Amino acid sequence: MENKLYVYNSKTGKKELFEPINPGHVGMYVCGPTVYNEVHLGNVRTFVSFDIIYRYLKYLGYKVRYVRNITDVGHLTESGEDKVLKRAKLEQLEPMELVQKYTNMFHEMMSIFNTLNPDIEPRATGHLIEQMEMVQEILDNGYAYEQNGSVYFDTLKFNKDYKSYGKLSGRKIDELFTETRDNLKNQDEKRHASDFAIWMKASDEHIMKWNSPWSVGFPGWHLECSVMSTKYLGETFDIHGGGNDLKFPHHENEIAQNIGARGVEPVKYWLHSNMLLMNGRKMSKSDGNTISPYELFTGNSEHVSKGYSPMAVRFFMLQSHYRSTLDLTDQAMQAAEKGYKKLMDAAQVVENMQYPGNNNNTTDIDEKILTILSAMENDMNDDFNTPKALADTFELVNYINKLKDGHLNFKEISIDTFNKIKDTFLKFIYEVFGFRKETAGEDNAMFEGMIELLISIRNEARANKDWATSDLIRDKLKELGIQLKDGKDGTGWSKI
Amino acid sequence: MENKLYVYNSKTGKKELFEPINPGHVGMYVCGPTVYNEVHLGNVRTFVSFDIIYRYLKYLGYKVRYVRNITDVGHLTESGEDKVLKRAKLEQLEPMELVQKYTNMFHEMMSIFNTLNPDIEPRATGHLIEQMEMVQEILDNGYAYEQNGSVYFDTLKFNKDYKSYGKLSGRKIDELFTETRDNLKNQDEKRHASDFAIWMKASDEHIMKWNSPWSVGFPGWHLECSVMSTKYLGETFDIHGGGNDLKFPHHENEIAQNIGARGVEPVKYWLHSNMLLMNGRKMSKSDGNTISPYELFTGNSEHVSKGYSPMAVRFFMLQSHYRSTLDLTDQAMQAAEKGYKKLMDAAQVVENMQYPGNNNNTTDIDEKILTILSAMENDMNDDFNTPKALADTFELVNYINKLKDGHLNFKEISIDTFNKIKDTFLKFIYEVFGFRKETAGEDNAMFEGMIELLISIRNEARANKDWATSDLIRDKLKELGIQLKDGKDGTGWSKI
Repeated sequence: MENKLYVYNSKTGKKELFEPINPGHVGMYVCGPTVYNEVHLGNVRTFVSFDIIYRYLKYLGYKVRYVRNITDVGHLTESGEDKVLKRAKLEQLEPMELVQKYTNMFHEMMSIFNTLNPDIEPRATGHLIEQMEMVQEILDNGYAYEQNGSVYFDTLKFNKDYKSYGKLSGRKIDELFTETRDNLKNQDEKRHASDFAIWMKASDEHIMKWNSPWSVGFPGWHLECSVMSTKYLGETFDIHGGGNDLKFPHHENEIAQNIGARGVEPVKYWLHSNMLLMNGRKMSKSDGNTISPYELFTGNSEHVSKGYSPMAVRFFMLQSHYRSTLDLTDQAMQAAEKGYKKLMDAAQVVENMQYPGNNNNTTDIDEKILTILSAMENDMNDDFNTPKALADTFELVNYINKLKDGHLNFKEISIDTFNKIKDTFLKFIYEVFGFRKETAGEDNAMFEGMIELLISIRNEARANKDWATSDLIRDKLKELGIQLKDGKDGTGWSKI
Repeated sequence: MENKLYVYNSKTGKKELFEPINPGHVGMYVCGPTVYNEVHLGNVRTFVSFDIIYRYLKYLGYKVRYVRNITDVGHLTESGEDKVLKRAKLEQLEPMELVQKYTNMFHEMMSIFNTLNPDIEPRATGHLIEQMEMVQEILDNGYAYEQNGSVYFDTLKFNKDYKSYGKLSGRKIDELFTETRDNLKNQDEKRHASDFAIWMKASDEHIMKWNSPWSVGFPGWHLECSVMSTKYLGETFDIHGGGNDLKFPHHENEIAQNIGARGVEPVKYWLHSNMLLMNGRKMSKSDGNTISPYELFTGNSEHVSKGYSPMAVRFFMLQSHYRSTLDLTDQAMQAAEKGYKKLMDAAQVVENMQYPGNNNNTTDIDEKILTILSAMENDMNDDFNTPKALADTFELVNYINKLKDGHLNFKEISIDTFNKIKDTFLKFIYEVFGFRKETAGEDNAMFEGMIELLISIRNEARANKDWATSDLIRDKLKELGIQLKDGKDGTGWSKI
């Protein structure tokens, strides 16, 4: 790989050398959430995947502008209702109250998983003028038509001129353009079943709507991403990411809109992350095969035997490549929890470890370690292969633990190599993999361990009729705010 | 007061009985931050003040819709530059990157101070269409005129018809309308010095601009609040809040715009919070008399002798009425820190206290306590008088501590009174005053106290040549991840 980054481009179906349009700079757009309910664990996987990609690009030294949108209008259900409006009605909230509520919850969840904030987080409702302008451009270029106040993208005309509709998702054009009775249902305004709305006339009772040259209405869902990505990243930008399920129709239509409006392909590299399964099957509310992030943290679900911390979940997600499906099982989570703990224990050891002396002679072991360090970068350079890069770090963990336990003598590696381990290992753990110390749990264990120790010393003292020590412990703890309670079954405690 | 809420209305200069437009519901709009730099402590005071108001209205049982905006465009400096653009240039960021950065930091600071999220947090850039529509309405009604692509509000014409311009801020109309050489500087497009822009034509190099019927430009800063408040709260709503410094011109112009567009007064009660001073003087960067929230937390400032926790600062802010100036001094902060600790210690005591038995006979003391409990509500009902209500809670703290120490016997108060203390006291502390347990500090003190205790027991054991105990403590602590280090000056410790 020679330190060059290769990424799998969904558009070409190939791994390609990553060469950003402006050397040193990367523009990356990722489709964000529609904020009408709590974020699903599957979506979390997508955002964690692109968080790693963002982090690694920064690690490589790129100046990255990462844009991830908030969809707060226009995303319709299959029956044609606006998702936000439908839920707002159910929760008896003003739509923007609903949007606020779930945007806040989304941000909280992203923070729990220690993902970095995007550099710009634009909202669909914040870009209505720009969306109307793009509708007008597409109309002016002849790739859209107006019907009763709505505007539709003309996929047939577009495909005739550009021959590319369906290319990203690999849909067969013929199938897309076949007009079956089913796909024409409720679509009598459209010329062809494959056409899609870029502006929709709103009914009277529709709340989120705006004046436009065509009608009082709202933009089609696909439009916002075409507009906001190019507004902040330029007409052609480097990376567009999102979940696999967005390839069609969302991303296919984004491309068509951008080309239809400006005549140029908007994206150089299309990156798509794969699905999260549970117990080998697709997650689905209807058959109960589902778990929410909080259920996973608390263990409050029939699908897990206990709760797992957010960082254990993050570790679990990194154990699979972003383009592979990932299967959540209780067993896999237990293994991830152990792995995460082992990794962070080693991080703690390395942080406090000092190399004794100043030896700079290298040995075979130096060479082995340097090979592992290169492998970490090489594996990440191979389309962000986190499972392999994680496995590499565990080879380092073995060396670190050997040094700690004295099974490997510091003299057997050079100070340079030691410093490289320290530097790269910690950078990968904190900056690239994005793990965070979950100290609360550890501190609690210490806290409880110390109280138990004091209680056992006190019991010993009482057995020896050493009342001075016994009273000292009870009184001193009380002073600190901890009350000991002697009972039949031994001594308990509580905070006062 | 008889349990009725009175609020001081800046518009009338009187305390008025609070009667919301829709019984049971309150609509409240508060001017939020311009997100071009870190939020100042003075702004924090404003947002904490309205947080208390929001919380108390909810405590009273109102269903409140609290709207607080984010200004991300159009707020100009005195020399006429857009604040966001000016700073974006300095930081070499795209304006929306800057907006994202400081919006995130603002949210973080609000969370540190434990303020509740508003129900809707609309952005100026998210409401451009609505702002253009209001410009058009004002033009249609004859209260604005266009000049070279910009649109100005005609204050003279407005005042001739409505005779109310300047009323909120108490400015003398004559002074406002006097055309001095100074106030006409660079204002050659305006008919009168007191007129203000509601739409501004943008120069070529201006980045944040949009197509409009008058020019490619951007809205005047005052317009967004007129638009977003009435969009989400109705053409006339209950409460409009903000800092005193916003009365003129911002709020005065808001009123003019709303009346100019729709003919109705937008706000029933105008509430304004007062300034935060330091050492008796206005905070000001230019003369060094300033402190940032983080400097106050860490103590990293010449103006304080040590750091103070966010909740101690919140306590300090509540010790003054929101309409009074508040003077930050190191001495006042030390007192606030002590007061806060005393209050939260009492909360801890009450939470764990159980009333023994079932006595329901009342005494004089019951009566005294019930009077205090009423006073807490009465004082808050008197225009949210937090310093008085806080003082009331400290009278309860005295009773609580007497019960704890046995200086007051539970038999001297009834179980009903006890339950009322417990209920109201805790509700005021957590829900109304919005304090949060700062456990990290307390837990640390316990943690360190226990280690010190174990070290002193070990020293005693070593003096007695009780090696078993001494080794047990050292080994057990190591197992927990705490390393003891014996040295000349005694025994230290560190986490491994």
